[in-house]
Amino acid sequence: MKVCALAGGVGGAKLSVGLQDALAPGDLSVVVNTADDFDPWGLRVCPDLDTVMYTLAGVANPETGWGLVNESFAFLGMLSGYGENTWFKLGDRDLATHVLRTQKLGAGETLTGVTAELSRALGVPGRILPMCDEKVSTLLKTPAGLLEFQEYFVRRRQGDEVLGVDLKGIEDARPTEAVLEAVSGADVIVFCPSNPVVSLGPILSLPGMRGALAAAPAPKVAVSPIVGGKALKGPADRMLSSLGHAVSSTGVAAMYEGLLDGMVVDRADEDEGEDIERLGMRVLATDAVMRDRPDRGRLAREVLEFGAGLGA
Amino acid sequence: MKVCALAGGVGGAKLSVGLQDALAPGDLSVVVNTADDFDPWGLRVCPDLDTVMYTLAGVANPETGWGLVNESFAFLGMLSGYGENTWFKLGDRDLATHVLRTQKLGAGETLTGVTAELSRALGVPGRILPMCDEKVSTLLKTPAGLLEFQEYFVRRRQGDEVLGVDLKGIEDARPTEAVLEAVSGADVIVFCPSNPVVSLGPILSLPGMRGALAAAPAPKVAVSPIVGGKALKGPADRMLSSLGHAVSSTGVAAMYEGLLDGMVVDRADEDEGEDIERLGMRVLATDAVMRDRPDRGRLAREVLEFGAGLGA
Repeated sequence: MKVCALAGGVGGAKLSVGLQDALAPGDLSVVVNTADDFDPWGLRVCPDLDTVMYTLAGVANPETGWGLVNESFAFLGMLSGYGENTWFKLGDRDLATHVLRTQKLGAGETLTGVTAELSRALGVPGRILPMCDEKVSTLLKTPAGLLEFQEYFVRRRQGDEVLGVDLKGIEDARPTEAVLEAVSGADVIVFCPSNPVVSLGPILSLPGMRGALAAAPAPKVAVSPIVGGKALKGPADRMLSSLGHAVSSTGVAAMYEGLLDGMVVDRADEDEGEDIERLGMRVLATDAVMRDRPDRGRLAREVLEFGAGLGA
Repeated sequence: MKVCALAGGVGGAKLSVGLQDALAPGDLSVVVNTADDFDPWGLRVCPDLDTVMYTLAGVANPETGWGLVNESFAFLGMLSGYGENTWFKLGDRDLATHVLRTQKLGAGETLTGVTAELSRALGVPGRILPMCDEKVSTLLKTPAGLLEFQEYFVRRRQGDEVLGVDLKGIEDARPTEAVLEAVSGADVIVFCPSNPVVSLGPILSLPGMRGALAAAPAPKVAVSPIVGGKALKGPADRMLSSLGHAVSSTGVAAMYEGLLDGMVVDRADEDEGEDIERLGMRVLATDAVMRDRPDRGRLAREVLEFGAGLGA
């Protein structure tokens, strides 16, 4: 069964590794948000791509969900000695990814090509696909002014109220050929439990992406990142609220209205089922919180079974 | 007393730190070879500049003479995991220097400007001056073909016979304004005990550099890098031999003929005194081997006293 997953960072990586465990090697394609990529010290850093890659390769830091296991920070200490502001924690091993990527991009390779090389070297069996090869940057409107995503997310620890989202460069970006093929060739398309505004939002905002999803024959299923009115991780709940969305699985379903055939929610939100079904999708209520690796595989299998059952 | 030293890597750095110890803060300018700079993984690495900078800052690895003290190699291990050939040992802390430099050069700063910023941040009291801001690359003709300098020096461990030296880009390079000012404003000019072919050779090959030295009013003194027919460090002895020079302090003096007022040799080479004086320079024989930091200061003071005594 060919599966195409749309993912952001940690939440997307967790379900993706469950999907990888549930599928034959090579049957998974993960389309990853790149709108929070940025260039600290001139290095191209792709936080979501790397979180997904490290997680699928089994080398992610299990404590944080991002970064590498057994990481050290000697580079950062020296940078700090040079007077640099080191709020973005680039690990020594992680740095190898960014340095190689920056070099290869500088030599004219595409982000899609570079990501394929790096993830193959790390032993990832499936395909990790940047949503696009062009540069897109998420800018957040806040009471403190316009903030770059990592500035908001890491440096200011998501403390600012998000009043609007600007995806700089999105109008000139396009889903890559590899993304379009993964979408059109999938048996099931899965929206991971990622932030619908700043993780899946940019993917869905790419010109042509909604049309490609609509044209794809596969059933589309989302897993809600909101459980009991709270985000499983990160600022999605506060962001939904400040942007005027309902902070609930129903609120998320409404943002994906017209795109989905089914929605997977936690049992805690089982009573939202009727509201969500009124948006034109079926609902599966299950244990949607992924605590450990078996949880991820179990949820992935439930999602795939539910999704496949929604097919024509 | 204003001193301008010409230096390559480890030998130059050792005498430079002695000069720094002997002089008032800020009275030392070290003009450093940049012809062995290269760009592993797209990062601008300047081995001689960094050896001098780390040594003058007191953070060099005392075991090797190059690289940083308390260094780790996690970055390199990860690069190796990506399938990269990691013969050039970039340390995690060292990497901060290269990443910052690459970023700043990319933003349009000069190597002279970047070096000033980095060395100031590390607390170096004097001025470390790249010989030029243009890119010059030392290529070595060997029986195995044309080798880039670091390929010959690090990867192949100086095992190839050097039959010729090509300084790619030298005709379009020029000594910087800062270098010319350091030369013209010096009270003594010191040629450090560096390789006369591939360390001081490139500096002296810069168009305009010999003229600037000739026009400078300061006495010029060299410290021989050859003691008892052997190089203190590195392949200078074999290189002199294969290129047809005498492997002796006299041989080095002959390469600097017309440029120097004095030559400092080790007592082991005291009997070469007359031959060297016939080349038009005075000779001081002393203990020219720098074993520890007090040695460096002592030799530096002797060199300065000798040099100052050669003034008009």
